[in-house]
Amino acid sequence: MCANSSLLIAVITSSRCISSGHVTVRDGCCRTRTRTRTRTLFLHRLSVFGPEGTMSVVKLEEYRERIRKELDSAVDFWLKYSHDTIHGGFFTCIGRDGKVYDELKYVWLQGRQVWMYCRLYRTMDRFRRPEILEAAKAGGAFLRKFARVSSGQWKCAFCLTRDGKAVKIQRTIFSECFYIMAMDELSRVLGDKDMQLEAEQMMEQLIYWVKEDSSGLGRPQLPGDVPTNSMAVPMMLLCLVQQLTDGRGQEVVQKYGELASWCVQQILQHIQRDGTAVLENVSPEGAELPGCQGRLQNPGHALEAGWFLLQVSAEQGDTELRQTAINKFVELPYQKGWDKEHGGLFYFLDVDGHCPTQLEWSMKLWWPHCEALIAFLMAYSQTKKPELLETFSQVYEYTFNHFPDAKNGEWFGYLTQEGKVTLDFKGGPFKGFFHVPRCLYMCERILDDLLAYTKD
Amino acid sequence: MCANSSLLIAVITSSRCISSGHVTVRDGCCRTRTRTRTRTLFLHRLSVFGPEGTMSVVKLEEYRERIRKELDSAVDFWLKYSHDTIHGGFFTCIGRDGKVYDELKYVWLQGRQVWMYCRLYRTMDRFRRPEILEAAKAGGAFLRKFARVSSGQWKCAFCLTRDGKAVKIQRTIFSECFYIMAMDELSRVLGDKDMQLEAEQMMEQLIYWVKEDSSGLGRPQLPGDVPTNSMAVPMMLLCLVQQLTDGRGQEVVQKYGELASWCVQQILQHIQRDGTAVLENVSPEGAELPGCQGRLQNPGHALEAGWFLLQVSAEQGDTELRQTAINKFVELPYQKGWDKEHGGLFYFLDVDGHCPTQLEWSMKLWWPHCEALIAFLMAYSQTKKPELLETFSQVYEYTFNHFPDAKNGEWFGYLTQEGKVTLDFKGGPFKGFFHVPRCLYMCERILDDLLAYTKD
Repeated sequence: MCANSSLLIAVITSSRCISSGHVTVRDGCCRTRTRTRTRTLFLHRLSVFGPEGTMSVVKLEEYRERIRKELDSAVDFWLKYSHDTIHGGFFTCIGRDGKVYDELKYVWLQGRQVWMYCRLYRTMDRFRRPEILEAAKAGGAFLRKFARVSSGQWKCAFCLTRDGKAVKIQRTIFSECFYIMAMDELSRVLGDKDMQLEAEQMMEQLIYWVKEDSSGLGRPQLPGDVPTNSMAVPMMLLCLVQQLTDGRGQEVVQKYGELASWCVQQILQHIQRDGTAVLENVSPEGAELPGCQGRLQNPGHALEAGWFLLQVSAEQGDTELRQTAINKFVELPYQKGWDKEHGGLFYFLDVDGHCPTQLEWSMKLWWPHCEALIAFLMAYSQTKKPELLETFSQVYEYTFNHFPDAKNGEWFGYLTQEGKVTLDFKGGPFKGFFHVPRCLYMCERILDDLLAYTKD
Repeated sequence: MCANSSLLIAVITSSRCISSGHVTVRDGCCRTRTRTRTRTLFLHRLSVFGPEGTMSVVKLEEYRERIRKELDSAVDFWLKYSHDTIHGGFFTCIGRDGKVYDELKYVWLQGRQVWMYCRLYRTMDRFRRPEILEAAKAGGAFLRKFARVSSGQWKCAFCLTRDGKAVKIQRTIFSECFYIMAMDELSRVLGDKDMQLEAEQMMEQLIYWVKEDSSGLGRPQLPGDVPTNSMAVPMMLLCLVQQLTDGRGQEVVQKYGELASWCVQQILQHIQRDGTAVLENVSPEGAELPGCQGRLQNPGHALEAGWFLLQVSAEQGDTELRQTAINKFVELPYQKGWDKEHGGLFYFLDVDGHCPTQLEWSMKLWWPHCEALIAFLMAYSQTKKPELLETFSQVYEYTFNHFPDAKNGEWFGYLTQEGKVTLDFKGGPFKGFFHVPRCLYMCERILDDLLAYTKD
């Protein structure tokens, strides 16, 4: 075992899977499975799975089997169709049958694919394959060469031509976030300290933009544009803190400790209306904002925040945070966001029941379902409350009945409210190699841990 | 009759309705109906309506009756619910029952509402009502006070708070376009030369941004962001030329003559693939662009361009342009864009049959149907080809069966592919008092002219 394996360090989307209180270490240098066995295995099974324990074990094994297959299929799909062997990087606009229908390269998705390849390579034996490493390296090289708008700046483009020319810049922080995620994870695989340093330096710039002065992002300061705490920002920063600190020792954890706490507080500010709703945008002081923007609910986003918080709570042993995360960011968004008529999670909702102005509000997108699967399974693994597993099962049934494409592999991303595929591509400007494989990867590992208990 | 009444000047969305070759003048100073009667009325009826002429007349009268009622209802709805009597200007986010669900004021929609009120007031006797004039003046005052980002600049905000503070600025020309339309039309109603001059000065700035240097719009120049001729730009400029020149004499017409020709040429460049498709974005030289952007079709936009071109062709007596407009911008977008399974016009399509990346591509929006109604009725009125009237009838049936809200008035704007209302508000960030009333206004006037023939 390496020196770091016993550290309980916060890791979101982590190389270490924190579920039922056990820490299973599977990083590059130590992949020994640590299992704590108890003398009360029978009673424990009962507490995990209820009186019909064996049935539930069979069910969980079925889930894991399907999830493993889907993950293998997703990886195969992107390995086969997305690599640009001429200019480097990845095609992300990929049709239902794998054909590239647009050569633009979206920086969010380049960064996410590098990150996902590296995470799989680093932490799951069956993905420790040369073609995955080579693809991640090629993607990383493309990003380093082209993503930053100019060499003296940290600002990254949103979209590049096939050969790396900037097409569009967003006035937000997200291209940079995924650049950091990619570089940090790749630096771990390669042991590249310069790359790690670059990720940390860009992180400093991000923190400055978010907490000190956002004018460098290019948005004009307008008198009617009120300061807003958008859920995405503290979520992404928390995700990055945990990426950068994962297994790197107390000094780094301390460096980002204050930021991590700030992120958690900023996320918790989104609990509004006496705890009856999670709103997507609030004021920096945590007050509700007027109008559509203030009333907006994004159930998938709240659920994603939920499992981010669950990981923090597990790492810190904070049972109060765990309860808040489950009540407000897992159960509540599901209760509000689940379509009782047709099944599936709505994309957007207005807390007062007005019609959202987003044209896609009633559509069922793949990623909220991915985030819900992780959130409910993680919540269940931490609490063993059967109702959480029941809801996981419900979301699982909807998800696996609607999104996977049995014919050509990978998942569809966009369904009508009624569940019909309405955009049939596998990759697009906002769908790449990320939510599907991350969900499958996280769920497989949580299920591994849950099922490890059931074996003698 | 006033001195200008005999001038055949280009007018899109004009105070003069050019349909079957007759010019009917109904502007502020001259509302005398000019009718050319022929001795061959019977034969003419046959040519207009076919052998079952009387049946068709009845049908057209039914259409006109319904259209008049819908226009009255739409005007009533916005008069009743949209006026902000405290801060001026108009609420545009209005729910199905008339309730304001967001107080933000979108500048496009402020300008359009001023324009539409003034046009109705100026050219239709039944709308020459004090409350309409007062509302238009209040809207104009709000725009003049708040829309421009700073007093020394022409750039307008995209969105304002209720009390007029800028919330967002788009890096495009469209807020300014609707500001100009509003100011020019209001200046005609009020006889305000300063206001007219302001509109013309802003127009000069727009022309400079479009034809000389767009850097003032705030978009960074990026190496991968290739120059594009987007249909919206020449369409809007052509619309503005015709607004500014309408009835204003030869000097003004000449001033903008070159620009008008340039706009027509830029629109015609969108005919691609050997005349088999109208594409939304082409290069400034008229070549097809790569990827999704280059393959995009927006049938509603093409149809709107179609009737803009039909008006130019009628004004200039250009039969070749008329034929091109009908074949390529009226019939072709309908053939490509009509959903043969569920009816209605798709919002976006990819010319090669890929799935568009816009999530709303398969939805049925109100405005493409409004534009299709105008385009087919105008094309019919200019040619008397029965197949054009047949298609008008088909679009009419779909439109009037799906969009109007019989209970609360006005129209819904957003349907699923199958025709179910999925966003139920009457006004939103992009739906105001414009496409519905403009369509009804234009159609009523074309029908007036068509039916005028049938009377002794």
